[in-house]
Amino acid sequence: MTANVPATVPAFDLPKVPDLRDAELSARLQRRIDQKTKPLGSLGLLEGLMRRLGEIQGREQPALVAPQVVVFAGDHGLAARGVSAYPSDVTWQMVENFLAGGAAVSVLARQHGLALTVVDAGVRHDFAPRPGLQIRKIAPGTADMHSAPAMSAAQCQAALAAGAETLRSLPGNAVIFGEMGIGNTSAAALILARLSGQPIERCAGRGTGLDDAALQRKLELLRGVLARHPSAVEPLDVLATFGGFEIAQMVGALLQAAAERRVILVDGFIVSAAVLVAARLRPAVLQRCVFAHQSDESGHRLMLDQLNAQPLLQLGLRLGEGSGAALAWPLLESACRILAEMASFESAGVSNKDA
Amino acid sequence: MTANVPATVPAFDLPKVPDLRDAELSARLQRRIDQKTKPLGSLGLLEGLMRRLGEIQGREQPALVAPQVVVFAGDHGLAARGVSAYPSDVTWQMVENFLAGGAAVSVLARQHGLALTVVDAGVRHDFAPRPGLQIRKIAPGTADMHSAPAMSAAQCQAALAAGAETLRSLPGNAVIFGEMGIGNTSAAALILARLSGQPIERCAGRGTGLDDAALQRKLELLRGVLARHPSAVEPLDVLATFGGFEIAQMVGALLQAAAERRVILVDGFIVSAAVLVAARLRPAVLQRCVFAHQSDESGHRLMLDQLNAQPLLQLGLRLGEGSGAALAWPLLESACRILAEMASFESAGVSNKDA
Repeated sequence: MTANVPATVPAFDLPKVPDLRDAELSARLQRRIDQKTKPLGSLGLLEGLMRRLGEIQGREQPALVAPQVVVFAGDHGLAARGVSAYPSDVTWQMVENFLAGGAAVSVLARQHGLALTVVDAGVRHDFAPRPGLQIRKIAPGTADMHSAPAMSAAQCQAALAAGAETLRSLPGNAVIFGEMGIGNTSAAALILARLSGQPIERCAGRGTGLDDAALQRKLELLRGVLARHPSAVEPLDVLATFGGFEIAQMVGALLQAAAERRVILVDGFIVSAAVLVAARLRPAVLQRCVFAHQSDESGHRLMLDQLNAQPLLQLGLRLGEGSGAALAWPLLESACRILAEMASFESAGVSNKDA
Repeated sequence: MTANVPATVPAFDLPKVPDLRDAELSARLQRRIDQKTKPLGSLGLLEGLMRRLGEIQGREQPALVAPQVVVFAGDHGLAARGVSAYPSDVTWQMVENFLAGGAAVSVLARQHGLALTVVDAGVRHDFAPRPGLQIRKIAPGTADMHSAPAMSAAQCQAALAAGAETLRSLPGNAVIFGEMGIGNTSAAALILARLSGQPIERCAGRGTGLDDAALQRKLELLRGVLARHPSAVEPLDVLATFGGFEIAQMVGALLQAAAERRVILVDGFIVSAAVLVAARLRPAVLQRCVFAHQSDESGHRLMLDQLNAQPLLQLGLRLGEGSGAALAWPLLESACRILAEMASFESAGVSNKDA
């Protein structure tokens, strides 16, 4: 297996992510929504979604073009210590499953006409090149962060650049972020704990399905990891120390997507951790984000609160892969179609409240 | 405007709705779900949906064929007393809007390839016949239930029969129920209050958008209506006394759909009131129901509890029309596709938890 990163790499140039706020446009969007033939506010969260999509695209009539699902995959040194119910090999096996069309996200992408790209950000396995797979391996898995940072500063910079590069290689104006990596709920929980200052018990959960005893062992281990790295507090240090390569590449891709003003559809707990890092670096990233769902992973509610996010779905999902985001996708299409196609009180000759 | 119901009509023959429980099939469905390449239970509510669809269709691989949205419309005598923020004319104007393709449910039905039928169950307006419209008017609006039952026993029987007939006229194995009728949150709240024994304050809400003062007047009025009809306690009496024609036709259609073992996708507060009546008559109706969403109408949570229902979406919707059900529709398709297309641990060569 190849590790592609030399000891020093050029520093990743953080993209500019300008503030999108435009009170005049927001007012026009709200007026457009309020003139539709329905009681004021009666489409609930969908109305906020319409405003958000319009604001991201800077127009009253947003349209979604060539939406991309990108699943970033990586392995975690910590997995050898038993933080997951599944062995590390499941990471590469699931990458094969994504590419063969048999995973949940593959099925949902087909259903909704979403292009699916899988990125080897750092899987402990050599993949045969093929369409739909981008091999951008930083190393075959991160280091065991119980004894050292998960990645070097140079690897972290390389991962950010690789993520941005992946994003630039893809067409369209909307990106659905997903991930795969046995052990990565631990990495996401550590990032959340350090960046939020909350205790690890509130941040870490059962992941793919730990029982009570295994959860206690995981919490104990993560407590030790946090104690081992007291000086990692800046966002990029936190990312390098606790992150996975898939998480770091997502941060780069999120920043690039935000800079290009694409719609960013955020999946569950692990993608949200990448958003948390990206938003600490460039707060206006959040203006481009739509949060697809609140997952069943126990720290996700805290994470969403940190991000001031109101997710669309609450289906008790805890699968990852981008599956929750793919399930939410039709709601984004509905928001655009309702703005475009629904009649106004005037055009339909329907009496309004004041009539 | 024509009232089509003579003083006496043949009694509606309540269809048989047999118990669907089949422990052996449920176990096979669960096994099939558990063998998919995902952590056990990680698809959350979607897994319950897969079991429900399989159980309705009596097979491990459910499939949805020619799904139908049916919007039942009717006017309410009580509306003249100001229980809604909108005038009664909005009912017929919205029927025209549905048929012209400009309403929210029209847009969503187009998005998801759902056939849309509108039924004039008792609108205070004469419609020109056209494709997509079924004219089954019982009378041009119900009576003012402040002084008399909303409909006669004969009208209620005729409405049940008309609803069943509408259902029989439509193809496919899945029906999405929607409704339109200015004043019908009052009717639904009264049905809920009487059948649940809960106080009207817990059952009635702001409907299309009443302010505080108007809500208090509505509650006062509904309290008076309940006091005026103390003897209406049996489901069909409750339906005739407080219901709308659109609600009564939905009850007939729900019973018929259940008898034919179609998948029933339930929209919001008013459709749920029809389900409540149907389930009191034939409890196994509930085995055929999927509850699309919990609406923002304040009594809906209580209604769903009465029905022991766990809705898929919580988007703060309060539009009706079947719009929430149409928004949930892709989740039903996802459930079927995941059962059909997602790989098993064995077929994909992915290591399972015990490996």
